[in-house]
Amino acid sequence: MSAIKFSVTSKSGKARTGLLTTPHGKVRTPAFIPVGTQATVKTVDPDDLKTLGAEIVLANTYHLYLRPGTALIKKTGGLHNFMNWDGPILTDSGGFQVFSLGWGLEHGVSKISNIFPDEDEVDRRTQKPRLMKVDEEGVTFASHLDGTKHRLTAEVSIKAQQDLGADIILAFDECTSPLHDEEYTREALARSHAWAARSKKAWTNRKQQALFGIVQGGAYQSLREESAQFINDLDVPGYAIGGSLGKTKKDMHQILGWVNPLLDSNKPRHLLGIGEVEDIFNGVARGVDLFDCAAPTRMARNGTVLIRPESGGDLKNRFRLNVAAAKFKNDMKPIDASCDCVACQNYSRAYLRHLFAAHEPLGPRLATIHNLRFMMKLMEEVREAISTGNLSRLAKRWGVGLQ
Amino acid sequence: MSAIKFSVTSKSGKARTGLLTTPHGKVRTPAFIPVGTQATVKTVDPDDLKTLGAEIVLANTYHLYLRPGTALIKKTGGLHNFMNWDGPILTDSGGFQVFSLGWGLEHGVSKISNIFPDEDEVDRRTQKPRLMKVDEEGVTFASHLDGTKHRLTAEVSIKAQQDLGADIILAFDECTSPLHDEEYTREALARSHAWAARSKKAWTNRKQQALFGIVQGGAYQSLREESAQFINDLDVPGYAIGGSLGKTKKDMHQILGWVNPLLDSNKPRHLLGIGEVEDIFNGVARGVDLFDCAAPTRMARNGTVLIRPESGGDLKNRFRLNVAAAKFKNDMKPIDASCDCVACQNYSRAYLRHLFAAHEPLGPRLATIHNLRFMMKLMEEVREAISTGNLSRLAKRWGVGLQ
Repeated sequence: MSAIKFSVTSKSGKARTGLLTTPHGKVRTPAFIPVGTQATVKTVDPDDLKTLGAEIVLANTYHLYLRPGTALIKKTGGLHNFMNWDGPILTDSGGFQVFSLGWGLEHGVSKISNIFPDEDEVDRRTQKPRLMKVDEEGVTFASHLDGTKHRLTAEVSIKAQQDLGADIILAFDECTSPLHDEEYTREALARSHAWAARSKKAWTNRKQQALFGIVQGGAYQSLREESAQFINDLDVPGYAIGGSLGKTKKDMHQILGWVNPLLDSNKPRHLLGIGEVEDIFNGVARGVDLFDCAAPTRMARNGTVLIRPESGGDLKNRFRLNVAAAKFKNDMKPIDASCDCVACQNYSRAYLRHLFAAHEPLGPRLATIHNLRFMMKLMEEVREAISTGNLSRLAKRWGVGLQ
Repeated sequence: MSAIKFSVTSKSGKARTGLLTTPHGKVRTPAFIPVGTQATVKTVDPDDLKTLGAEIVLANTYHLYLRPGTALIKKTGGLHNFMNWDGPILTDSGGFQVFSLGWGLEHGVSKISNIFPDEDEVDRRTQKPRLMKVDEEGVTFASHLDGTKHRLTAEVSIKAQQDLGADIILAFDECTSPLHDEEYTREALARSHAWAARSKKAWTNRKQQALFGIVQGGAYQSLREESAQFINDLDVPGYAIGGSLGKTKKDMHQILGWVNPLLDSNKPRHLLGIGEVEDIFNGVARGVDLFDCAAPTRMARNGTVLIRPESGGDLKNRFRLNVAAAKFKNDMKPIDASCDCVACQNYSRAYLRHLFAAHEPLGPRLATIHNLRFMMKLMEEVREAISTGNLSRLAKRWGVGLQ
């Protein structure tokens, strides 16, 4: 018996709504999962998350493995108890962080600040490429915190995730970058599949936790299709789509078109690390059920807030407004008059602008609350639109084309 | 007719409980006033403050005058509207910050970090003594933010405070340091008294705002008594006791013993910038009604939390515990098992320790919530003890001697 149950509650083309039942409660899909990297969604607490409408959160195994340690969290009663969130939790395998950090530095791709929501954590003293060495068994890497050497394998990742005790855990995989060629991506895919099988073997508490396999293969159609077939045949409770999703949004949507038809339609599909408005629409239109992304909360901490079409949000401005900008210092309007969050109900842009200018912690908090509410409300509307056959109409209202 | 009404509701020796009625609601005294320097109590919002039991907040005119500007706040509907706090507010005159900054640097007293709750605001590029020049009319100073030159006088301060629109405003005064001799303190006191009279004259909206005069005079008995007499005779709605309170806690308590008997007992007395447990007890025992202090919220942001006697708090540890310390990493107990705040009801010391180690904003927030609740609960108990004639017993339970 699986730890989770997934039922499709309505369909409209390839889009569907569903109900994901986990040991810690239900998640209505399609859902956006707030990212709580270090066992906390930055600036907010579990009560805030529930008020905002969040039904599931994600935590990062890599970060928690290094600090405070997954064994320590197990000792304190597991992640739910530790962070006081009694709803569903999903943890990743740690692979994404290890590989992103390694490849990023090796290729001179300075995406570190995107990988680590808290930039301060990156040791900027040396700026040297850190140790990250892949072999057939796993990966050896140096901690971004203190340079200590660690070894991550499928078995170590699954053990760490079982210690954390999330409702959904991810198989360990090798995450390739858009700069890898087809040959390397094929070799990495072979490792990822071997590790997926080992992850499944290491996964022992199947009644408490559901393992999701991860489809890799970069932007190469044959590799993506091979991977989707392999992961489908692995017969795990759910799927994630990870790794390089190409160079453009079109590439990403194309990859989803290759992968999703090959995955069992009775199981949930999670598009890893994606959360822009147009990707949400195009993702659900291709049968994606779960999304997560650190961007809405990360950008909030710099004063960038998300605004709906009614308040001027569109594809061109990426539905973003920088409320910390000087031009808002006299603006008595809320961030978004059509939003029902406490930030929009109680505070002006002028006050938000002041909080950011004065480096006041309430600024990032209010902006985070707003951006998460924006995402939750969007997903509510998306679910409603799918169940009533109005997804295209809703996408149009948001100015998003469903290519 | 005064903007405020103050009625003593019970007396026990010199201690009293009271009810302070302002245009924005009632305050039960003795009360502790959380400090919201820049129109926000750092990390929390007005709903949090109400939940914690706060009935009044303080904002700093100096900071708001420089950023975002008191005229801007007036334009947005005043401070209550700007920061979304509909309860009573008290603003100071700005004098304390200007003089502390000036004297501190001139005398090499590096107390800047105590004066500015947000240390980052101090421009550390130059480290040069900033301009601060007193004359009979007022003081010329350079902004700590950008070095721009400003001039503060009684009239400017009162205008700024009228623009902010707090329920209680303070007269402009010259704040002397413990390093000033009696001669200088006497000259400064003469200026403070002249400025108090000018503050009263500049104070025009007497039905909306209540002006408190400030008793100065350093640690010199004759000057403190002269000042108390002068400020009492000024016939304003309330009093504050400010400036240097000597070098020891005993000095402070002695000064209160000189000053308070000379002040009209039908008006409220505010001891400025004081908030340690033993000072609260000794203050109320000498007839103080209002306290404010940035320490409980400032120390919270570094992981220092206040604990009650039941949980090991005492005079020796100053009722403090550094929950960010490594020794708490496995500690599943709450900060203080006898506390009813959300931090203590829901989270372990181990989790708090993790949040601080990982630089997570939820750490400072939970610690701030706890420390403010500690202060509010202490004041609730103090009021109850005074009204039932049990103040000495309560002080004893806290291990505090009422000298």
